[in-house]
Amino acid sequence: MTQQKPAPNKRVVLVSRPVGIAQANDFAIEETSLSPLQDGEVRVANQFLSVDPAMRGWIADSGNYSDPVPIGGVMRSLAVGKIVESRSPDWHAGQIVLGWFGWQQFATVKPEAIVRAVIQTDLPASLALGVLGINGVTALLALTLVGEPKPGDTLVVSTAAGSVGSAVGQIGRLLGCRTVGIAGGANKVQQCLKEFGYDAAIDYKAGTLDAAIAEECPNGVDIYFDNTSGQVSDAVLPHLALGARVVNCGTAAIDRWAPWPTGPRVERHLLVKRARMQGFVVFDHMDKWEEAVAKLAQWVRDGKLRYSEEVLDGLDACPDALAGLYRGENTGKRVIRI
Amino acid sequence: MTQQKPAPNKRVVLVSRPVGIAQANDFAIEETSLSPLQDGEVRVANQFLSVDPAMRGWIADSGNYSDPVPIGGVMRSLAVGKIVESRSPDWHAGQIVLGWFGWQQFATVKPEAIVRAVIQTDLPASLALGVLGINGVTALLALTLVGEPKPGDTLVVSTAAGSVGSAVGQIGRLLGCRTVGIAGGANKVQQCLKEFGYDAAIDYKAGTLDAAIAEECPNGVDIYFDNTSGQVSDAVLPHLALGARVVNCGTAAIDRWAPWPTGPRVERHLLVKRARMQGFVVFDHMDKWEEAVAKLAQWVRDGKLRYSEEVLDGLDACPDALAGLYRGENTGKRVIRI
Repeated sequence: MTQQKPAPNKRVVLVSRPVGIAQANDFAIEETSLSPLQDGEVRVANQFLSVDPAMRGWIADSGNYSDPVPIGGVMRSLAVGKIVESRSPDWHAGQIVLGWFGWQQFATVKPEAIVRAVIQTDLPASLALGVLGINGVTALLALTLVGEPKPGDTLVVSTAAGSVGSAVGQIGRLLGCRTVGIAGGANKVQQCLKEFGYDAAIDYKAGTLDAAIAEECPNGVDIYFDNTSGQVSDAVLPHLALGARVVNCGTAAIDRWAPWPTGPRVERHLLVKRARMQGFVVFDHMDKWEEAVAKLAQWVRDGKLRYSEEVLDGLDACPDALAGLYRGENTGKRVIRI
Repeated sequence: MTQQKPAPNKRVVLVSRPVGIAQANDFAIEETSLSPLQDGEVRVANQFLSVDPAMRGWIADSGNYSDPVPIGGVMRSLAVGKIVESRSPDWHAGQIVLGWFGWQQFATVKPEAIVRAVIQTDLPASLALGVLGINGVTALLALTLVGEPKPGDTLVVSTAAGSVGSAVGQIGRLLGCRTVGIAGGANKVQQCLKEFGYDAAIDYKAGTLDAAIAEECPNGVDIYFDNTSGQVSDAVLPHLALGARVVNCGTAAIDRWAPWPTGPRVERHLLVKRARMQGFVVFDHMDKWEEAVAKLAQWVRDGKLRYSEEVLDGLDACPDALAGLYRGENTGKRVIRI
């Protein structure tokens, strides 16, 4: 293959390290040109970029589960795209792949950056970033591995209408739990009930959270799937049932961890209720990814697992996309179409 | 058997419900007379009464794992004594038994109140209240069932010189852990090192707790056995290693739970470190009690498990005994000899 003059590549880079949530001006869009592909490399034309709450942590300087994105570096993200050129024996042009391709048009990567080939080609490719990707797989694995649901358990979910939460609620119901969603505002509560099939839904902004949890969980909370931390969690923990499991999956309600925020102590709840709180990061469980996606995909095909997706268009939407999530303005799993 | 005139029985009753730790004046000593034994009942002459930090919870009005001792009721406690009369086919006079006999000279009970016959008669009977009782069994079962120690793990223990903590540290070391004790004051630190064989010991009163934990746990804390909550726990949690286990066994550092105290939020530590916090109450595991005691007794006989015991004399020592524990004045597992 002969190289013509270098093709351009637009990408979104981090230009400052935010305190708290990254805002649009913490990023810049720059145009570079693509170098010729090296031996062992794969080039992917991104089709959809992911926008996830966890990105806040990937940028943060303080303790997290991965090294922070460097200043000047392309913003780390999962993306789905098509291989346009491969100099790796394991991959070939035309394959649809999910991987750590970043917020850019083209990603030139080693095969290690590829998470998987997207084989559910009967379903929209963007789902590999949502209900058939990090959100759905997190929901299924965190709920089953840490939450250990049993039929008849009462499962409470925070950010119940969100990308992870909505899948947790539906999967919990498929597994026989009574599901109680907590979300902000009447619209999300309606979405929980009508779209995601929760047995009950509570508006935490209504100001009667404690009483509502007591009413909807008369036998206590067997599983609390916590995506938020903060006031919602503080209200749920006093209602734990004996032997309850709390899945720490996200801390969306906490703007910043410096200075470290305080809240009601949890130790006494855990002791008195012989309960367990445990953190979950889906990337520890990559060996279970394909099996999880296959199960989720079948539920989607069967109409048993619904999802909500919001598509923004073009790289220009990236810089403000994460801050927008934290402003609560998205209407479903947020992806950016290239 | 003919009944003579009723024998006297001195007992310690709760006369007011304390806020916080029960003080001497929350109890009164009264003398009653024993009624004739009824069918199915057993009468025990108490030899040693237990004084345990957890008693604070048995008195408290607020949420706990058992109903509170009623006002006017005999103070609930474990005790070891000799059966002096039995009208139950399962028990006979002369047996040494451990049970819920309360702070009194004689207990007249149904067999359900008897926890076990003390069969380790080659060892002092009082040990059935301590290292071969609630303290040792809690240490062994909580450490193994929740802490899941592996050789090479770093195990940090709060109240490291206490009745539970000292057993946890020694058992952890027997199981191959590096053991780091946290205790208050130079004397207890020396006791940790010299008597209980900790690999390292830290004085939390020295004011350099965070730095000391970092120094003694260079690879992080794999297991934190938490008997305290409060400032010690707050200092340990940022040092958790990936996949750490936190055993919530007690909250000795918290004087009262009304109003509910606050502290640094733990959710982010648990999430980032994929760690687990779990409450443990030994009474959930009565089926493992005999096996645990047999193992502990053998370690004691072999000189591998040391204990410290403080014997107070007479019922008159009871009313102030619990408050004294919280003042930190005991020099070992506190028992009262009748």
